[in-house]
Amino acid sequence: MPERLVVIGADAAGMSAASQARRMRGAHDLEIVAFERSTWVSYSACGTPYFVGGYVPRVEDLIARTPAEFAEREIDVRIRHEVTAIDTAARRVTVRDLERTRLGRAALRDRRASAPARDRGAELAGVHELHTLDHARALRRVVELRPRAAVIVGGGYIGLEVAEALMHEGIATTVVTSPPAVLAPQLDTDMGERVVAYMRDQGIAVETGTRIECLTGADGRVTGVGCRVGDDDAEFPADVLGLGLGSVPEVRLAEAAGIPLGESGAVSIDDHMRTRVEGVWAAGDCAEAYHRISGRPVNFHLGTIANKQGRIAGINLGGGDEAFPGVLGTAITKVCDLEIGRTGLTEAAARDAGFDVIAENFDSTTTAGYWPTAEPMTMKVIADGANGRLLGAQIVGGSGAAKRIDAVAMALWNEMTVEAMVNVDLSYAPPFSGVWDPVLVAARKASDARAHH
Amino acid sequence: MPERLVVIGADAAGMSAASQARRMRGAHDLEIVAFERSTWVSYSACGTPYFVGGYVPRVEDLIARTPAEFAEREIDVRIRHEVTAIDTAARRVTVRDLERTRLGRAALRDRRASAPARDRGAELAGVHELHTLDHARALRRVVELRPRAAVIVGGGYIGLEVAEALMHEGIATTVVTSPPAVLAPQLDTDMGERVVAYMRDQGIAVETGTRIECLTGADGRVTGVGCRVGDDDAEFPADVLGLGLGSVPEVRLAEAAGIPLGESGAVSIDDHMRTRVEGVWAAGDCAEAYHRISGRPVNFHLGTIANKQGRIAGINLGGGDEAFPGVLGTAITKVCDLEIGRTGLTEAAARDAGFDVIAENFDSTTTAGYWPTAEPMTMKVIADGANGRLLGAQIVGGSGAAKRIDAVAMALWNEMTVEAMVNVDLSYAPPFSGVWDPVLVAARKASDARAHH
Repeated sequence: MPERLVVIGADAAGMSAASQARRMRGAHDLEIVAFERSTWVSYSACGTPYFVGGYVPRVEDLIARTPAEFAEREIDVRIRHEVTAIDTAARRVTVRDLERTRLGRAALRDRRASAPARDRGAELAGVHELHTLDHARALRRVVELRPRAAVIVGGGYIGLEVAEALMHEGIATTVVTSPPAVLAPQLDTDMGERVVAYMRDQGIAVETGTRIECLTGADGRVTGVGCRVGDDDAEFPADVLGLGLGSVPEVRLAEAAGIPLGESGAVSIDDHMRTRVEGVWAAGDCAEAYHRISGRPVNFHLGTIANKQGRIAGINLGGGDEAFPGVLGTAITKVCDLEIGRTGLTEAAARDAGFDVIAENFDSTTTAGYWPTAEPMTMKVIADGANGRLLGAQIVGGSGAAKRIDAVAMALWNEMTVEAMVNVDLSYAPPFSGVWDPVLVAARKASDARAHH
Repeated sequence: MPERLVVIGADAAGMSAASQARRMRGAHDLEIVAFERSTWVSYSACGTPYFVGGYVPRVEDLIARTPAEFAEREIDVRIRHEVTAIDTAARRVTVRDLERTRLGRAALRDRRASAPARDRGAELAGVHELHTLDHARALRRVVELRPRAAVIVGGGYIGLEVAEALMHEGIATTVVTSPPAVLAPQLDTDMGERVVAYMRDQGIAVETGTRIECLTGADGRVTGVGCRVGDDDAEFPADVLGLGLGSVPEVRLAEAAGIPLGESGAVSIDDHMRTRVEGVWAAGDCAEAYHRISGRPVNFHLGTIANKQGRIAGINLGGGDEAFPGVLGTAITKVCDLEIGRTGLTEAAARDAGFDVIAENFDSTTTAGYWPTAEPMTMKVIADGANGRLLGAQIVGGSGAAKRIDAVAMALWNEMTVEAMVNVDLSYAPPFSGVWDPVLVAARKASDARAHH
C-alpha cells in the first residue's frame, strides 16, 4: 500500500508541494489527496484585483490548474472539503464535506491559510473582503452595478490594486489608511508619500493617518466609514467598502494539533519545511521564513514565497534534499502607471534592527534623460554603515522602473556591499537607462555617503 | 607648479577620468587638458542612431557636458586638436590644431579611440559611417532628403539601431550581414534568428550569410552593394549606405609611443588602468578589460565599460586606490518593440573556451500569461555542466523583457550556480511576470538539464 500525503489548502504552496512530490514519487508509491475549503484551487490570488477592474475578463484566466488537471497527474483534489482537525499521533485528519453539511459563510470565516486581520462590520451588505477569488467575484458583480463611491480600508498592495481597479471602472474611490503613507511598512514613509502624491494626481483620494472607528450603515447596507484623523472625526461615504487590512497566518488548525508556532506567529519550520512534529510539513502563508538580512523568522504572505516553499516541501517529502535559503521580502506592484518595487529592509526596519544605517535617495529617469518617453524614477538604497553591506532598496517610478529591483535583490542575496555594486557590469542603452544604471548610481551615492559617515 | 594631466580623446572614458581626477585634486595641484580631434566632447554615442531616426530631435540633447561646462570645473578641453605623438620618456605630447592646419577628412580617418574595422568604398557619396556624432549628423541630413532605399552593412547593435531609425523614417531598409543571424557574436545564432524573424515582420529586410564584395556607384554616388550569398552573386540597390562594421581599438598612437598592447589588440592595462609605461593610463575603447567569466583580456566597445574604466583611472591617477573588477559584456538594445539583452559568454563562446556547456532556452511572457499586454519572451541560459556555474544569458522579447538581464548579470558577477539561482527572492506581480520569474525558471531548466547531463 502506498503512503498517503494529505495536503490542507490547495493553492500556491499546497499544490506546488503536491506537484513536486508527484514528480518525485509515482502513484504506486505515494497517494496524494488535497483538501480545499473553497471552490477554487491553484489560482493567482495576486491577479484578483485585475479581475475586479476588468483587465482580466474571465475568472478562468486566473486558474493555473483545475482539479481535473490535477487528477490527470494523479493528485486527488477535493474542493469544498474543510479539514477540521489534525491528529498528528494517529496520522489522521478529520474532514468535513461542506456540500453535505452546508455550513453558513460565517462559520467559515478565518479559516484560510492566511486570514484577514480584522473584519469588523463585515455583516453589512456592500462590505467586501479582498482576499480570495470568491471575494473578487463578489466585488466584480458590485462593480458592474456601477456604484458611485467606494472606500478601501488599508493602503497595502491589495488595497492599492483594488483602488486602481475601481477607479479604472469609473468609481470615485478613497483609500483610508492609518500610517502616514501607503504601502507601510513595505516602503519607508518618504517613498510611500510619492505613491500617495501620484494616486491623488490620478484622482484616487488617499486619506493617510486616518484610523477607522466604525462602519456606518442603513437598512443593512454600508453607507460609509467613520474615522478619526488626529483629534477630529471624519466620515467617508461609501456604497462599497473594501477591506484590505492585510492578513495574519491561519494557524488555528496547527495550534489545535499541537504544532508549534514561531516568534512571527506562523508555524515554525526548518529549512526543509518540516514543522517540529514528525511527518508534518508547512509552507506558504501559514509558515515562517528565514529573513536573510534581519536573520529573524518572518511571515510574509507572498505568492513567490508560497510557491518556492511548496516546491521545497514537495522535494523533501518526496525523498529529495533541498534547503530553502530564505527570503528578502522582494515585491513589486503598480498603481495605474506608477511602478513600485522593494526588497530587503526599509530604512525604518534597519534602524529598528539596530543597524548603523546609511540611506540614500536618487532621482533619475526610466531611460536616458533625453529619450522621448523618459519618466521620473526614484531609488532608495539602505546600507549598513559599519561594513557597507546592502540592506535593502525601494524604487518608485514610471514604466520599466520597478523590475530593476530584481538586480538589487540579486546583489542583496549575495551580500554585496554598496562599494562592490558600483562597478557591476549592468546593461545600458538610451531607451532603458543612463550609461550608469540608476542601480549603480544609487549604490555609488550610498558608498559616497558612507565615506563621509 | 601643478602637475599636468593630458587626456587624449574627450569622450566617455577620457572625460570620466578627467572629472574624477578633478574631484580628487584641486586645480592648484593638478592642471587638466583634454584634446579632442572632433568638434564634440562627452556625448552619448549610443544615442546617435536615435538622432538619425528623429526620436531625439536635437544634437544638443546627446551632449552630456560642453567644453564650457568642463571649463567651469577647471578642465581645459580643446576641440579640433589632434594628438599626433606621445613621448613617454620626455612626458610630452605633440598636438596639431586642426583649425589651423585644416587637414582633409581622409587624413583623419582611423584615428578615433575606436576606429571602424573597414571602410572600403567610403569615398562614394551616400556612404556613411555610423560611429560618431558627426556621422550621425551627416546621415540625418540625408534622411531628411527622403531617400528611397538604404542598405546597412553589418548586423551589430549600431547597424540594427540605424536600420530601425531609417525604417522609422519611411525608408526601405536592408541589413546585410555575413553571419547566419544578426547580433553575432553577441547572441547565439538561435537567438539572433528570432531577431531576424521579428525585423522581417516589421518590414526591415535582413540578408544573412551575405558577404559584401563591392560597392557600386554612378557619378561618384553609391547605387548599391554587390554581395556573395553562398555561390551566388546578389546586388542590393541603395541610395544610402550605412557602414556598421564594428570597430577595432585605436592604438596607433600608443603603438608608436611604445606602449604595449595585449592579446586582444588593445592597450594592455592593469586593474588600476595603468599601462605598462609609467605615468600613462588607458581606459575605454582603446584599452583591454578583464572578462570575469572567460578569465581573458577582452576589448569591448561599450559606453558602460568606458565610463567605469575612466572613473577608475581618474580615481587612481588622482591619488586614490580602486581596482576595476572586470566585465561581463552585458548589453541591451531594441529593434522597434523587440528588446534584446545579453551577458557573459554565449553558448558558442563557452564551447570555444572549453566549458562542458549546458544551454537551455525558455519561452515565456513578459507578464503573467493572462495579463492583457503579455508579449512573448525567450530566455537562454548557459551554464557550466561541471559545477553548475552560470556562464551567460540572452533575452529576446517584448516590452520589459531585456532589462531583466541585469538580474542575471548580478548573479553572474557573484559566480552563482544555476541551482542557487532557482530560489532567489525576485519580485512578482501579474503585470510584470509569472509567479516564477523567467530568470528563475530558466535557471531551473538549466539545473534540471544538468541533473540529466
